[in-house]
This record gives sequence, structure tokens and C-alpha cells, in this order.
Amino acid sequence: MIDSTPIGSLTESDSPVSAELYTRVQQFYARQMGLLDDGRPDDWSATFTEDAVFQEASRLDEPLRGRDAIRESSRARKQRLDEAEIDFRHWLAMLQVHPQADGTLRTRAYALAMRTPRGGSLDIFASVVCNDHLVPVDGGWQVARRELHHDGSNRD
Amino acid sequence: MIDSTPIGSLTESDSPVSAELYTRVQQFYARQMGLLDDGRPDDWSATFTEDAVFQEASRLDEPLRGRDAIRESSRARKQRLDEAEIDFRHWLAMLQVHPQADGTLRTRAYALAMRTPRGGSLDIFASVVCNDHLVPVDGGWQVARRELHHDGSNRD
Amino acid sequence: MIDSTPIGSLTESDSPVSAELYTRVQQFYARQMGLLDDGRPDDWSATFTEDAVFQEASRLDEPLRGRDAIRESSRARKQRLDEAEIDFRHWLAMLQVHPQADGTLRTRAYALAMRTPRGGSLDIFASVVCNDHLVPVDGGWQVARRELHHDGSNRD
Repeated sequence: MIDSTPIGSLTESDSPVSAELYTRVQQFYARQMGLLDDGRPDDWSATFTEDAVFQEASRLDEPLRGRDAIRESSRARKQRLDEAEIDFRHWLAMLQVHPQADGTLRTRAYALAMRTPRGGSLDIFASVVCNDHLVPVDGGWQVARRELHHDGSNRD
Repeated sequence: MIDSTPIGSLTESDSPVSAELYTRVQQFYARQMGLLDDGRPDDWSATFTEDAVFQEASRLDEPLRGRDAIRESSRARKQRLDEAEIDFRHWLAMLQVHPQADGTLRTRAYALAMRTPRGGSLDIFASVVCNDHLVPVDGGWQVARRELHHDGSNRD
Repeated sequence: MIDSTPIGSLTESDSPVSAELYTRVQQFYARQMGLLDDGRPDDWSATFTEDAVFQEASRLDEPLRGRDAIRESSRARKQRLDEAEIDFRHWLAMLQVHPQADGTLRTRAYALAMRTPRGGSLDIFASVVCNDHLVPVDGGWQVARRELHHDGSNRD
């Protein structure tokens, strides 16, 4: 399901998608990011394909490859946040949905990452562009590839 | 209409709702929070049921009980903000909508609270999770119960 | 297409619009603001009518009048941001859509303006209310008039 073409280089139609499709993808992200923020790493990782690639394109880190790696990373992340007593939220908005000929979806959304330590102040610390490749699974979607581009990093 | 079950303990379906329902709830919140931010406490309170309960679950304060209490609180709030010359905005997003068997809706959304004093700087000071119980009224909804959970407060 | 009536003074219906209309306008803004943030001033200006008026109502500046002026302003803006190596994002949300009898749309949305310098920190520096007059063009819309009200400025 995953090709090696960078997501951003695909030709994208500017046509709007149907209300049903658009709101389903909105709901997918509301639920998906909620799972991460609620500290449910196993449910979170289940929203990715078995062979998903999760890349922070603006960082030097190797991408996470596969749902197992995503789950492990997310479990470790949850433990760090729990120990530090930090509430974390991911906001996604400004969603664009581009259906592909093969039935998959390319999406682009803006994301904000924010944290609040126990008794502390809200810190909205990162603006990120999230490019996803979603594949249809059981009437919903799973993320086959996620590329995150952090604002303020070197341009591609 | 109001039961004593904490909103968060209800079993929630992960099924997406229809585009019509989802966008109607989105529009409900855009309008509702706009009324509050525009300094219209009477119109704001009219979006709650007569017996609505408004609870900041993460605070020790007693909940506001009833539309009249919500109106009074909102009027006092408006006066404080007007005197301090503060523009206030509430953003809601990452909306999840869970229809109940009785025709009501349980919703969850992320909220950001922000203020800008006259001539001053924007301060986005609180990330909140908003859990609502909406009841159908005249083709729209009213809030029967609102529970706000402030990030950074003690967990429930 | 442009009348001289201040956008905010029009009588606005509180009726929700259809899912199709609401999500099309959401997608219009996701694309439009993406063009600006991606540094595509010519494509950005093409989302305005030839005789569009772009007004920062809370500032003393004269409004930009016409697509050409909007394009020039946007090109200059892009050059400044490129030279300063700043990533800029505009978020719009809390959208309200009010269809007019003549087939145009009045919209209101909250906006956040944010920037991240290369290697620097995210700065969300302005909360703005965006009032647009959209006219139908080729199955989509163009902005005939945009009025931006910055929070913290003098009230109208």
C-alpha cells in the first residue's frame, strides 16, 4: 500500500470532497488524536497499518516503521508524560482531503502540540504540518504513512 | 433529562455520525461560543436547558445549577471583561459526537481559552476538555450538562 | 457585488446550513489559507474577486482594493517572510455561514496568526475575527470583501 513517493510531491486536486467524506476524516482525527492524548497507546497504534511509516520529516531521526514500533514508542511516551504529570493535547485543523485513484486518501492538516504540567501553565510549543496517507479499512481508515513537518525546521 | 452518571463513564461508540449531524453540532458550538465571546449573556444562557448543570469538574467550585444561575454568572463575567477591556475567545475543535439511545447527544471537544487586553498581547492560557450532554430542542440542541476538565488540574 | 453595508451590521440568521455547504466553505478556507502559508501569493490572490476589498478594520491602514493590490501585498509579504526565514500559519475555525438572498455568503470565523522562525519558538501572536463576503464563482467562491478585527484593538 505504501509507495516511495514523497507525499508532498503528488499532484493534488483542489476539488472539495463530499460532506460525508470530509466529516468522516474530521472524526477520524478527533478520535485518533484523542486516543493519543488520553494515554491509550495500544488503541492509538491500532489506527495505523501493520506496515505504517511514521516520519518526522524535519528531524534527523529514522522514521518509525510498523505498528509495533509505533506502539512501543507511544507506550514509552505515555510513561514519560505520566511520570512528569503532563497533560498533552494535539489539535488538528485546516484539513485538506485528496482522494486517490486507488481509493486511498492523501490528507494535509495543520497541527498544534501543547502541554500543561500539573499545576502549571499551558505551553503551545509546536506548529506542525501533518501529511497522511490513509487507506480504507473496515469502513474507516488507517494511517499507512505520516509525515510531520515542524515549522521552524530546515525546509525540505 | 439529566442523569447522575458522570459523562465520561458512559460507553461511547466510535462510529462516526452523519455529515448533517456533525456539521450541525459544529455550527451549534460556533454560534454558542460566539454568543459568549460577543458578550451576549442572555442569548448564551438560552443555549442551556432550564435545569442545566455547568460544572468545572477540575475545580472545587460547586457547579452552576439552572439557566438562571448560568445567566447571572455570565452577566457578571461580561461586566468584568468589559471593565478590564479584554477580548475573550473560546475555540472548540476535535469534536466527537456520540448519539444516545434516547435521542440526546454526548459530545467531547477540546477547547482553548484566550484573552487579549486592549493594546496588549494575546494570551492563550487554558486547554480544556469539554464534555457536553445535548438535548434536542426545536430542531436544534440545548446543553443539559457541561463538564469542563482543565488540563493541568488533578486527575479525576 | 460589494455593497457598502458593514458586514457586521447585516441581520444574520442563526439557522445552520447544510453539511455540503458547511464543509465546502471549511475546505475553501483550508485551501485558501494554505496557499498564503505556502508562499503562493498569485494563487492566493486568485481566491479574491477582481474588485475585492481587504480591510483590517481595527487598523488605520487603508484597505487593499482589488486583486492586484492583494497580490502585490502578498508578494511583498512572502519576500519578507522568506528573508526572515519564518514559517507562518493561519488557523481559521468556529466558522459561521450565513447564506444571503442573492446567492452570496457572509461568513464569520475566528483566526489565529502564528509564526515560527528557523530554529526558534512558536509564537501565536494574534487572535482575529474574520468576516468575509463570498461570491459564487465556477462552483466555488471568491472573497469579495474581507474584514479583519484584531482582538485587543479599539472596538468599532
